[in-house]
Order: sequence, then C-alpha cells, then structure tokens
Amino acid sequence: MLFASDNVTPANPEIIEAVAAANVGNVMPYGDDPISQRVREGLAALFDRAVDVHFATTGTAANALGLASIVPSYGAVFCTSLAHVNTDECAAPEFFTGGAKLIDVPTADGRLCPKQLTAAIEKSVPGFVHRPEAWAVSVSQPSECGSVYSRDQLDEIVDIARHYGLLLHMDGARFANAVAATGMSAQDMVKGIDVLSFGGSKNGCMMAEALVFFDPKRSKHTPFLHKRAGMLCSKMRFVSAQLEAYLADDLWMRNAHHANAMAQRLAEGMARLDGVRLAAPVETNMVFLVLPEAMASGLKAAGAEFYWIGDFPTPAYRFVTAWNTNEQMVDEFVKLAGSLA
Amino acid sequence: MLFASDNVTPANPEIIEAVAAANVGNVMPYGDDPISQRVREGLAALFDRAVDVHFATTGTAANALGLASIVPSYGAVFCTSLAHVNTDECAAPEFFTGGAKLIDVPTADGRLCPKQLTAAIEKSVPGFVHRPEAWAVSVSQPSECGSVYSRDQLDEIVDIARHYGLLLHMDGARFANAVAATGMSAQDMVKGIDVLSFGGSKNGCMMAEALVFFDPKRSKHTPFLHKRAGMLCSKMRFVSAQLEAYLADDLWMRNAHHANAMAQRLAEGMARLDGVRLAAPVETNMVFLVLPEAMASGLKAAGAEFYWIGDFPTPAYRFVTAWNTNEQMVDEFVKLAGSLA
Amino acid sequence: MLFASDNVTPANPEIIEAVAAANVGNVMPYGDDPISQRVREGLAALFDRAVDVHFATTGTAANALGLASIVPSYGAVFCTSLAHVNTDECAAPEFFTGGAKLIDVPTADGRLCPKQLTAAIEKSVPGFVHRPEAWAVSVSQPSECGSVYSRDQLDEIVDIARHYGLLLHMDGARFANAVAATGMSAQDMVKGIDVLSFGGSKNGCMMAEALVFFDPKRSKHTPFLHKRAGMLCSKMRFVSAQLEAYLADDLWMRNAHHANAMAQRLAEGMARLDGVRLAAPVETNMVFLVLPEAMASGLKAAGAEFYWIGDFPTPAYRFVTAWNTNEQMVDEFVKLAGSLA
Amino acid sequence: MLFASDNVTPANPEIIEAVAAANVGNVMPYGDDPISQRVREGLAALFDRAVDVHFATTGTAANALGLASIVPSYGAVFCTSLAHVNTDECAAPEFFTGGAKLIDVPTADGRLCPKQLTAAIEKSVPGFVHRPEAWAVSVSQPSECGSVYSRDQLDEIVDIARHYGLLLHMDGARFANAVAATGMSAQDMVKGIDVLSFGGSKNGCMMAEALVFFDPKRSKHTPFLHKRAGMLCSKMRFVSAQLEAYLADDLWMRNAHHANAMAQRLAEGMARLDGVRLAAPVETNMVFLVLPEAMASGLKAAGAEFYWIGDFPTPAYRFVTAWNTNEQMVDEFVKLAGSLA
Repeated sequence: MLFASDNVTPANPEIIEAVAAANVGNVMPYGDDPISQRVREGLAALFDRAVDVHFATTGTAANALGLASIVPSYGAVFCTSLAHVNTDECAAPEFFTGGAKLIDVPTADGRLCPKQLTAAIEKSVPGFVHRPEAWAVSVSQPSECGSVYSRDQLDEIVDIARHYGLLLHMDGARFANAVAATGMSAQDMVKGIDVLSFGGSKNGCMMAEALVFFDPKRSKHTPFLHKRAGMLCSKMRFVSAQLEAYLADDLWMRNAHHANAMAQRLAEGMARLDGVRLAAPVETNMVFLVLPEAMASGLKAAGAEFYWIGDFPTPAYRFVTAWNTNEQMVDEFVKLAGSLA
Repeated sequence: MLFASDNVTPANPEIIEAVAAANVGNVMPYGDDPISQRVREGLAALFDRAVDVHFATTGTAANALGLASIVPSYGAVFCTSLAHVNTDECAAPEFFTGGAKLIDVPTADGRLCPKQLTAAIEKSVPGFVHRPEAWAVSVSQPSECGSVYSRDQLDEIVDIARHYGLLLHMDGARFANAVAATGMSAQDMVKGIDVLSFGGSKNGCMMAEALVFFDPKRSKHTPFLHKRAGMLCSKMRFVSAQLEAYLADDLWMRNAHHANAMAQRLAEGMARLDGVRLAAPVETNMVFLVLPEAMASGLKAAGAEFYWIGDFPTPAYRFVTAWNTNEQMVDEFVKLAGSLA
Repeated sequence: MLFASDNVTPANPEIIEAVAAANVGNVMPYGDDPISQRVREGLAALFDRAVDVHFATTGTAANALGLASIVPSYGAVFCTSLAHVNTDECAAPEFFTGGAKLIDVPTADGRLCPKQLTAAIEKSVPGFVHRPEAWAVSVSQPSECGSVYSRDQLDEIVDIARHYGLLLHMDGARFANAVAATGMSAQDMVKGIDVLSFGGSKNGCMMAEALVFFDPKRSKHTPFLHKRAGMLCSKMRFVSAQLEAYLADDLWMRNAHHANAMAQRLAEGMARLDGVRLAAPVETNMVFLVLPEAMASGLKAAGAEFYWIGDFPTPAYRFVTAWNTNEQMVDEFVKLAGSLA
Repeated sequence: MLFASDNVTPANPEIIEAVAAANVGNVMPYGDDPISQRVREGLAALFDRAVDVHFATTGTAANALGLASIVPSYGAVFCTSLAHVNTDECAAPEFFTGGAKLIDVPTADGRLCPKQLTAAIEKSVPGFVHRPEAWAVSVSQPSECGSVYSRDQLDEIVDIARHYGLLLHMDGARFANAVAATGMSAQDMVKGIDVLSFGGSKNGCMMAEALVFFDPKRSKHTPFLHKRAGMLCSKMRFVSAQLEAYLADDLWMRNAHHANAMAQRLAEGMARLDGVRLAAPVETNMVFLVLPEAMASGLKAAGAEFYWIGDFPTPAYRFVTAWNTNEQMVDEFVKLAGSLA
C-alpha cells in the first residue's frame, strides 16, 4: 500500500489520543458539545474571520453539501474535467443538489484555465431557462494533478466568478498540502472563496472534514441539508476531537510539509533513473511518473502499490506520499526501481 | 445530561481501544480492509446467514440508505406516526429515495397496529398510479415509545407485508435493547426482515451503524447509493473496528442488558413516588413518566436533563438510560425526586 | 361516464374554436407569443394586481411546481389528509421539491381545521433540524370533499400561516366552482395566498392550468423549475388560447355556476329517495351520497359511472357534475335511482 | 419567425380538426380512452412490434422520462456534447433520474463517434462505485447538427452499447425528418433502440410526443414516474388525437419530406451566393450557413429570424425549415440574401 493514496494511512497517534481524551462523560449531542465549539473557534482563528462550520466524515459528503448549499437544483457548477467532484464522487453533487449540472472545463494541469472557464460560463446566459443557470465555480486546491493555484491564479478565477456573479467552492481535501506548498497563509488561501471543504482524513485524521462557510448567507439552508443527508453524528465530539488535535501544535501543517517533502524526495530519486520521467511538476504530495513497463510491473511484483491514471493530460503512474511516509521507504523504493531500470 | 438520551454518552473504553488498535499501518481504503471484512463475517455469524453489510456513521444515514435500497422514488413506506424515520430525520428517507412517501399509521404504543397497517396499505391499489405504490413497511424495534414487538407481533406485521408483496425494514437503532428485553436471539428477531439498521452509536460505540441486508437482491443498488450519499469513509477500518469490539465478548448485549435494567430500576423507584405514574410500560431503556410539574422543574433546576415528549399517545417526560448509567445515579435521582414529591 | 369526474368531459366548443383560431402563422415559442401575453394580462386584471404566470397542462404539474417554488427540499407543507396533493398526485410535490414532506392534518369536511393545523405546525420548531422545517400551507379551494372555505375561514388559515411565517398555496383545480359557490370575487378569494393553481382542465378546457404567483419574490426560481420539469411547451399558444377563451365572456364562471347548479339538482332529487342521504353538504359540483347497495349496483348495471370514496370522513359514493351535465341527465338519473329505491 | 425553429410553426389543419373531432362526449380520463388506445396500436403497427407508449406534451418531458425509466439515480448516460438532453433541457434528465450524470462525448458533426464513445464508456468500470455506473447511450436522430445516422452508423453505436451492457435511448424529436432523409423504415430506424422519444410537436402537431418502449421490462416504473412528473393529462384524448391524425395518411412523413426538401432548396439557393458557405451538409431540415456579417444583419433588419449557434463544430447561422415553409418563402429569402451579398 506504499504509495496508493493518502487515504490508506493510519491516523496520527495524536488524533487517536484526542479521541480517547474526548471519551469522558455525557455531553450534548449533535455538535452542541464543547469540543465542537472549540473547533469552530479554532477555524475562525485560523481564517481570521467569522465562519460557519459543519462537520463531515467524508470529503465527498463535505463537497456535496457545500455545493448543495450554494447551488439550486437547476444550477450549473463549473469545474475541471478532472475534478474529484466531477469524476470520483459518483455524482454526489448531483444527488445533494437535486440534479444540478457540473460543467467540465478542459484542463492541461488540473487547474482551471481562465480562458476555458470564461468560454464555458459564456454558454450560459443568465435567465435563459434552457440551460442550467451558472451559479458556482469549484476549484480543487491542490488539484487532482497535484498542482497548486498561486494567489494570482486564484485571483483570476475569483475575478471571473465575481464578474459573472458566481459563488466559489474550494475542494480542500488536501488543503494542508496546498498551504504547505505555497507558503500562503490559510487566510490568504481562501480569499474570495465562499465555502471550503477543509480536509483532515487524508492528512492524519481518521475521518474528519470541516465544511467552512465564510459568509453566513451561504449556509442558511445547510443545517437542514446536513441533517437530512445523515451527516449529523449524534456523538459529534468524536469527529471534532480529531480536528482539534489536527489543528493543535500545527499538526496539520507538519503532516503536510512532511508529505510534500517525501514527494519531492521520491520525484528526485526517480527522475534520475533511466527511462523515468515526471509527467507533471511535483508541487504537493503527488508524483506522476512515466515509467518503463518492466519497471512498473517489477515494482508491483515486489509489492509496491500505485495506480495508473489513464485520463490525465499525460497518462502516468501516480504515487501519493503521506504523513507516515518516511525517507527510508522512499529511498528503498527508488533503489528497487533503479534495479529494475 | 443524566437521562436526556443514550446519544449523550461516551463510548465504551473497549471501543476506543479497538479504534486505537486499528491504527496500525496502511490498509486498503473504502472498507476493503481486514477489520471491515471480519465485521461482515461476524454479522453473518450473528444472524446465521449470508448478509450484505454497509457501514454508516449515523442512524439516519443507515435508515435512509436502507429504505432507498428497497423503495423506488414513487414508492410508499408504511410506518407509525411516531417512527424516527418519519419524525426525526428531517425527511432523509424522502431525500435518499428521491421523493418516496412515508405513510404514517396511527399507533397507541409505538408499535404498528396490524389493523391500522392493513387499512393504510389497502388505500394503495397496486398499479394505481395516482398514489405512491406500496413497497415497504418500516418497524422500529424497539419502538420510539420503548415498546418491543414480540415475535408473534412481528409475525403479524411480516405476514401483512408479505401478503401485499411489501418489503420490511427494521430500524434497529436500539436493536440490542430489544434483543435484551425479549430474550429472542438476533436471528429470530430478524425473521422476515429484508434490511436492518443495526445500531451501535446509542449503545456504546462512537459512531458506527451497520446496514444489514438479508437478501442480496435487495442491495444491488446499495454500493452506489452509499458512495454518492458520502457515506463511504475512506478509512472505514475506524468504523468497523468499533463494531468489531461491540460484537466481541457480547459487549453489545452487556450494554443493553445493563441499560434496560437501569430503566427498570428508575421506573420502579419513581413509580413509588406520590404523583408520579408511568405513561407506558418500561420494556427497554426508555422510561416515560407523568410527573408533577413542581417535581419536573425541581429536578431540572437541580441539573437533571430529560425531555418532554408532547406528541406521544400519553404526553410525558422521557428518561433514557444507557450503558454508562449506574445504580447510584438512579438511586440519587429517585431520592431527589422523592424530596420534591 | 355520467358522474365519474369532471375530467371525463369534453372541452367547451369555444375552447376548441380558440385553439383553431390560434393556429395561424409562426409565433415565438415557449410562451413568448401574444396570446400567452394576453392571458397573463387577463389574469392580472382578474386578480387586480401584478401576477407572475406559468402555464401547465395538468393540475398535478401546477401544484407540484407551485409548492417547489416556495418550499425547499427540507421543508414541510401542511395540508389535510385528504388533499389532492397528498393523496392523488403520486408524491409529485415530494418529487418536484426534492423530498419535502407533506404533513397531513386530520379533517372532518375537507377543510383545514385551524386548531389541528396549529397543533401540527407547533410540532416543528423553527431551526430544529431533526424535523422538516415548516414552510407552507396548502389549501384546496374547493376541498376534495366539495366544501368551500368562506372568507372568514380562509382568514383564519391565512392568519395562522402568517403567524408562523409560512407561505400559502391554493390548489384551485376547481377554483371557478369555489368562486361561483361563494359569490366572492376572484380577488377576494386569493387574499393572503402566495401562489394559486388556477384550474381550467376540469371546467371546460382541454388541458390548461395557470400557476399564478401574487408576489414575484416567490417565483424567482420558477422559470427554471418549470423548464426542467418538461412543462415549457414550445407551442404554448395552444395552452394559453384555451385560457383566453376560458376567461372571455365569463365562460369559466358560466361553466362553474352551471356545474354547481346541476350538483344541487342532483342532490335534491336524490335526497328525496328512500334510503338515500347526503354524506356532506353540497357546496360546489360534487355530491357525496350514501346509497342502498342495491340502488348503487342497479345504477352501475344501468351504465352509470360514479366512484366509491372509502377514506373520506363519511364513506360515500361521489358524483361530480360538470359544464356539460344537463337537467335531463340529472332528472333521468334520479328517476332511475328512484325506481331502484 | 421565418427560419428560427420548427417549433414556431402552427399545427397542420388536420391536427386541429382531429382535436375538434375528439371533443365529443365523456370518455375515460388519463389515457384510458379509445383514441389513445388506437394510437398505441398505430405505433405498434408502425414499428411492427409490441410497444409500450406514454404520452407527453413536450420533448423535454419525453426525453427525461425515457432516461429516468432506464437509468438509476447513480447511472451515467453517454451522449454528445451537443445533445439536446445535455444542453437544452435545463438538466431535466438529471432531475427526473434523481441525479444521474450525462457524460458528454466530443462530436464533429452531431453524431456520436464510436471511438470517442468507447473511450468515454471505458472510464466507467462496472461496479466501481466512485463513478456513476454506465447505463445508457442517448442518440439524437437526427442530431442537433441536422446530420442523420445511417443504419450502419447506428449499428456501430448499438454494438458498442450492447458490448458494455448499456441501454439505448433515441431522441427522436425530429424522428420523421430522419426517416424521410434516409428512406429507412421506422422499424429499421429503431433496431436496437430500447426507448424512443417520438416527436410530433416540431413536425405539425400542437404539443404531442410519444415515448415508445420496445421492451416492456424497460417501462415497468414508467407509469408512476409519468404520473408524478405531472405528465398524465386527464383529458389525454386531446394529445392522442393529434398523434392519430399525425400518423394517418402519412401526414408525419409528408410534413417531414416537405421540410427536408425546403432545407435543400434553401441550402442550394444560398450556397450559390458570394461569401456564403454551408457549415455542414444538409441532411434533414436544418441548414447551417456561414454568412457575411453584412448579409446576416441585413436579413435580420429585413425581418428574417434565425439563430447564431456559437458552440457547434463550425459556428454558423442555423435555419430550420418546417411543414409550413413554402418555395416562395425560400426563394424570396434567397433573393433578399443575394441582394445583400
């Protein structure tokens, strides 16, 4: 399971300890407990503004609820053709919204191209009832290709969205990796964003995501949609305790910096091998490699796990590093690969 | 938070330990891990037959997914007017099914009345497109009034359902309490049932429910519905580890027997007090009491927590005991009440 | 087919003539034609205020779209247990709203009882996410029992709705019959109503209903919901032409007065017969009769058509008169029944 | 309104006469009348096999109901990026199916490209829950570009669908034009198709479409879905009477042959003009022309109506002919254009 995904990993010990520590006494259910309240305050502090927070146990649930909160059933959401919301959530956004349409915009590197985005939006005329009405843009930060939007790039997308009166959702399943990669602050990263899926599960939690709204107008329907989606855990403290530990002592950032560094180490090691080349620059914790077939099959035969991604701009093998990847694993893997070159 | 609900409680230490023990190494995500597999096998053993299992983190999610698996968007589900699926899930079954209709059948004690159920079903003529078509019956075992169906009573409901060609869902959010109360085996309890929401969260788990199908034909759509509802946790081992510990060493039954016994103790103590009477027989871990207003407010002033249930056959205060209720708590509470009598 | 329903009738010749007259030349599609525009103006004149109008070809579509326009997916709509939206539309409101819940309020005569309505609404606490949130009340005017709300009775319902911040939908599939029965003006009849399903199909049209919004805020989503429900006929002039003729020369009111008068005549004739009694007062064009079984079967054997309504407050046979019922039909029918008494 | 669309036209006089002729006496509602029955038989005869027929008043409703009948809420439907179901129905298929996903396949001429279709289907692995499961292919015959699949081309698509176990929907809003263009029989045209939207409204009817199932297994849910979508007109005879006249004396084919011939005449006339060229071959009743801007604006200034289609493979002006286009109109238009060349 070496590099299959960051979702095959265990949780940080700190996360488990926090869950165990939360297991004391009776407390109010459904998120009305002190831990959940502290996490809401922690996220407000992190983003340095008032936020409205709803907890989820999967990224798919967070994304779908986020989109359903800001897009009506007849709305259109613009995202890349590779967006997780578009290709890996079994049409959860369509289900949660009651049939809204995701319009997939071609992408060269996982990021939305401003020109292509504009062209796609232009096909929807406000008030023209024959097409779903343009309502939102969803950006994945980092993208499914591992690339990260710079602030300038985000600004371009935000400006386009605002120009057309659209709202902005950020799929931050790996938000920490993007923050770590860019050096931007969390506050800066969400400038112009209306709702963020703030991921924990892929970066050290067991199952904990926070859906963060930066404008209370956007979440007025959310508490009901959250409940009726079956997302309102009665013992919510066990979700929020994970996030409290995740935010404490910068655990989330330490994990992300580490995972990103391991990806760099892996990429550098592999790129030196004959016949191997990077299919995309390594900006976060994902490495896309074009490998000789003999090397790929040899590595798999030796027990390594990684996936072939056939529908990306450059089809390649994907390797994902995580908080629990270590230098020795990486170096041994590169050595093994080298022996197969 | 003394008697507000069984969902205000912490988890059993064994549950937390199991979660901690599961936190080792990388494993396949999305329920393809060994622990999840063992829980599937454990439930097959418990029910002594092949089962198809899907995990959930809330009872609402489990119920809604169960109903959506067996009822089309134009179907009708018969349940009591007090059923949790009908009154406490914010129309999650309607959402998951795409708009199916819950037909609420009047009830005197939380159980479906065979006569009333038959009358309700008879209003739907098969193939008559003007009404939702009758597809399923949902029973809560135990009911929201704390009452339990005997095997004979379940047989009556099952026979009616089968007579009209309907499927059967059992909301077993407190399934353990029903098994403990009746002495029936788990196998016997689900005779004739097509899909069971097997609850863990209210009886010692953090957040863990299993949706158990007893006929694979009924769950052929379920894996996709499960994923697109955002219920497919990537690190599912942390849900299934709870259930593994829950089933091990009969923890689930020990918890339930204890909770039921505490309810008996509470009821007996209270019933002896002047002006107090039981609004319903105590069969599981819920006690419904008619109290003098002075006593009720005095108890609340002293910090006790319990809810007024106004829309039950006999409006009353509800007290819920749990695995962590102890004799001392109960006795002190009764003593306090006595001092207010 | 004598008295089965008012939907078994042909259309007025004037309606057909109007359709034929509309069949000239090319015109803008989708309701952007002059006839549709004139109908919008005609309805504004009829109700003496600005209205927003959307056309439908069935009453079910109009009702469902009307409710979906004013109620979110997590909303609750209060209506009687006998309401057409509740029992005869195969859960179309649930489908169009994305799973909102119809809360059925017991009724003695088809009208909402203010006390029962209040009790039902009181069970929903604003912001309490476990139950669908109260959003709207739907009244059928006339009711499915043929009864009509007086202005005072409507005021009581409107006041309750306003008190709780709820919107009001009126199912006026037989709106004309109610106006004719009460002598109220159309303006008066809709005082306090947010959206009206203004029926034509049962009262002389082929298939034409108008969904009339009295506050443009309530219909801001409607054009899109209308289109995606497949309700936006390209050649809308053929729907609106029916409604133009329906409103012209008071055809709609003449039809309704006639149908109501025929119901009175039928009721008076039948009530004189031995063993026959009225199950409910006759206020519009529906007559509910308790008949000796021999008479009922004799009438059916002779070719008469009418339905048994088993789930109304007083189970009875229902007879519906229409614009094309005539005195001779009624008198012959009564004579035939008399011979079977 | 000269060439804006075939939906701006009036109905054939024969259609209006048939509607008037149907306006006699009371008949059973909801399609249980003799005319509707005869149309069902007429369609069975036309297609030379048993069919299950459901009536609609719009093409959007027919398409959405057809897809919802054969695709579950988690299913994927493959169609071209230009398909009417994908771009002009405001996500009605998504609404009717409860959130299924339309996967748009790039197209060069409006037809599905077998290679691109295969590539798109291959991205869905059966049973892989992270993507909507492949369930159906939808072909528009003729396509939105006016092109027609030959039998060989349809066979290729049918073979691919069958290879992957997918069902086939044909959007036949202009089915008659395709039959007329190819000389294929209606039977041959639907070989391998599971459900056809058989259009009438664009080709001489007022508002009448028939959804035709060629395998009763595929329509077992349809009657309920049809009712709850508000599509079940009580006075259905007025829809089916249109279709009866449409099928009688080959009216539908005469209309289509005429419309196609007028398109040819228009194309030939225009293609001779300086600066004008065909953007696509003219196979049915749609002509796509690249015009000098001065000519386009001059024609519009003179009152001509036609649309700019910017997102087709070759952006161009679209001209649609219909049953009521005549040679004089075409010749005068070409002459006018010539004067602007």
